[in-house]
Formats: sequence, C-alpha cells, structure tokens
Amino acid sequence: MTEPETTPRRRGRPARTDAATGPGARERILTAARAEFAAHGYDKTSIRGIAKAAAVDPALVHHYFGPKEEIFAAAVEAGFAPALLAPDMLPAGPREELGERLARFILRLWEDPGTREPLLAVVRSAVANEKAAEVFRHLVSRRLMMPIAGELDVPDPRLRSELAAAQLVGVAMLRHVIKIEPLASADIDDVIAQVAPAVQRHLTGD
Amino acid sequence: MTEPETTPRRRGRPARTDAATGPGARERILTAARAEFAAHGYDKTSIRGIAKAAAVDPALVHHYFGPKEEIFAAAVEAGFAPALLAPDMLPAGPREELGERLARFILRLWEDPGTREPLLAVVRSAVANEKAAEVFRHLVSRRLMMPIAGELDVPDPRLRSELAAAQLVGVAMLRHVIKIEPLASADIDDVIAQVAPAVQRHLTGD
Repeated sequence: MTEPETTPRRRGRPARTDAATGPGARERILTAARAEFAAHGYDKTSIRGIAKAAAVDPALVHHYFGPKEEIFAAAVEAGFAPALLAPDMLPAGPREELGERLARFILRLWEDPGTREPLLAVVRSAVANEKAAEVFRHLVSRRLMMPIAGELDVPDPRLRSELAAAQLVGVAMLRHVIKIEPLASADIDDVIAQVAPAVQRHLTGD
Repeated sequence: MTEPETTPRRRGRPARTDAATGPGARERILTAARAEFAAHGYDKTSIRGIAKAAAVDPALVHHYFGPKEEIFAAAVEAGFAPALLAPDMLPAGPREELGERLARFILRLWEDPGTREPLLAVVRSAVANEKAAEVFRHLVSRRLMMPIAGELDVPDPRLRSELAAAQLVGVAMLRHVIKIEPLASADIDDVIAQVAPAVQRHLTGD
C-alpha cells in the first residue's frame, strides 16, 4: 500500500490510491460486501471489514450505501438477482406447465455454485438475524412473490404463490443446506419432475 | 457464591454446591445447553458457557456428554423430540389422509412457541454450521425420514418422504423464520388444508 505524500490523513486510516474512489469503487464494494456477508454472516460483517476487503475508506462505503442494513440489502439484491427473473419467465409457455417452469428455474439456480453461494449467504444471514430477515422478506415479497401472484388467476394468489415457493425453498434447504440423502444426491431432473405437480397445484389449483 | 473452606480448588473455578453433581445435574445441563445453543447458535456456544448457565463445573458437562458436538446432538434430540413422534401417528388413520395428518402434526409443532423455539434453534445452528448440520442430518434421516418412508408402499419412498418434508420445512421457514405475508398471518388450518394434498401426493402418489 502506498502513502500519498500530499494528502492529509485523519484517524490513522490506511492510505488509498486514487483508483479507490474511482468509478469501479461502488462495484468493488458491492462484490466485497457479498463475499463478507457470505463468509461471516450478517452479525459478524462490519462496514470496516467490507471497506478493507474492497481496499477503500470505510467512509466511502457509507457514502455509497448508508448504514449496514442498506449495504446488506444491496448485496442481497445483487446476489439474489438471478432469482428475481423468475416472474419474467412464467408467462412464457403453457399455463399447465407453469409449475414445471418455476420449479426448473428456481432449482437450477441452486445447482450452479455461482448462483447457489450468494443464495446460501442470504439464507444464512436471514435465518440468523432479524434485520437481515426483514431485508430479505421485503425483497422476496415485492420483487418475487407479488409479480408471480400477479400472473395467477386464482383466489388467494399471493398465499398460493408462497406455498409454491415453500415447496422449492424446502427442497433447496434439504438438498443444499441440510444435505439429507437421497434428496441431496438425486438427479435434479427427477426432483424437478416430482415437485412440479405440487408447485403447479399451488399456482393454478390443477 | 460461597467458597467451601474444606475443598481444595483448582484452576480458579467457582465453587459449586453438592447439588451441582446430583441426579438433576444432567437434566439441568441439557436444559442449559438448549437455551445456550438457541440464544447464541452453535459457533458461539461453549462448554464453559453451558456449565456456567447450569451452575456446574465444565468437567461435569464433558463427563456427561463428551465434546461440543455430542452435547449439541443431545440438545437437538431433546428439542426435536416432539417432531420425532411424527412417524408414530402416520399409520393411525386412513391412507388417503396421510398427507393431512403429517402436515397437521408438523405445522402444529411450529405454532406452539414451546415447541417452535427449540426447532428454530436447531434450524439456525444447522444453517450456520456444517458440524451442526451433520448432527441434524443424521437425526432427521434416521429418526424421522426413514421411519416415515417405512410406512409407504410406493417406489422411492425415502425421496418421496423427503419431498413431502421439504414442503413442510419450506412452509415453516417462510411463515416463522422469513415471516413473509400473507403466509405468516394466514389461518393455520387454511394452510394445512392447502398443503395437505401436496404432501399426500408426495407420500402416496395420489
């Protein structure tokens, strides 16, 4: 780390290069925040730790994102972004295959480590911390469940879409978090084929 | 705390009364362990903290239960005990109501704070820590899923019973951990009525 000789320093913070406040800084902070929350959970992650991992001043983290729950929300949204596309693909096919499409889309996200790890990080934080659960709740409710419910022409579409989601959340939990056998090692296409009718029934009553 | 004048002390541990090693000590350690794991999670709970909460010597905790994962296993089994009765009630009624009976039994456990809190503690620890997940995995597999699968006369009874469990785990997660609405506030009998057919279908193929 280099010490710029012309910049006055305050509170003993380590020196940063000019690049640390440049246009890539926000993206780098977000990437660092995702990694920190994933590795340590909500409670043990600090603004200071995120700043260190991103090689920027903690004040810059606060400048871009505000308090810890706001940076968590941004990190969750970034990590959860692939799942938030689910409502978009629901209308793209026959109504009687809605359950199969949703099951395949969500469960496939959990098969790819690149999308699974951020999802796992979010679940771990939400289970451990009420503030993190609230952030997750609002995101899932507004961005995932309400749009899916909007596609359904059944009574209680929101409750039904949540019971469908519950089936998929439970499969992800038992397969990827608890890792119970034989579910943990079962062929994913077999799993999708078996849960699709349950999801379909919740979504459309078929 | 009183200092017994006749007992030689070692390593500065606080003095204990005779009752601390009496017949109630094991039960008290287990109760303290459940409370400590529930409050702090697996990682942050120590043998020392459990001993302190139970007002016994840490050596006594180790004497009764062995290392931390063993006392966790005992605490989980105690907290999880009500759920382990699920297989017993499965045969007690018509086969076409199996799903409804299992859904009612498991979801009702989550409605009562006295049984919900130990379950939540187990889930929190299992999600956060791989050692705790392993303890939970073996318990659920051997004591819950295999007996339930044993009641089913369908192909792949273990996978099917796990997909049924996944539906109920997901409902518990979204209702009691993430607390997403309207599921979190929905009448539990309505929820049971809506998930029972999905559970039944997994269990029996109906």
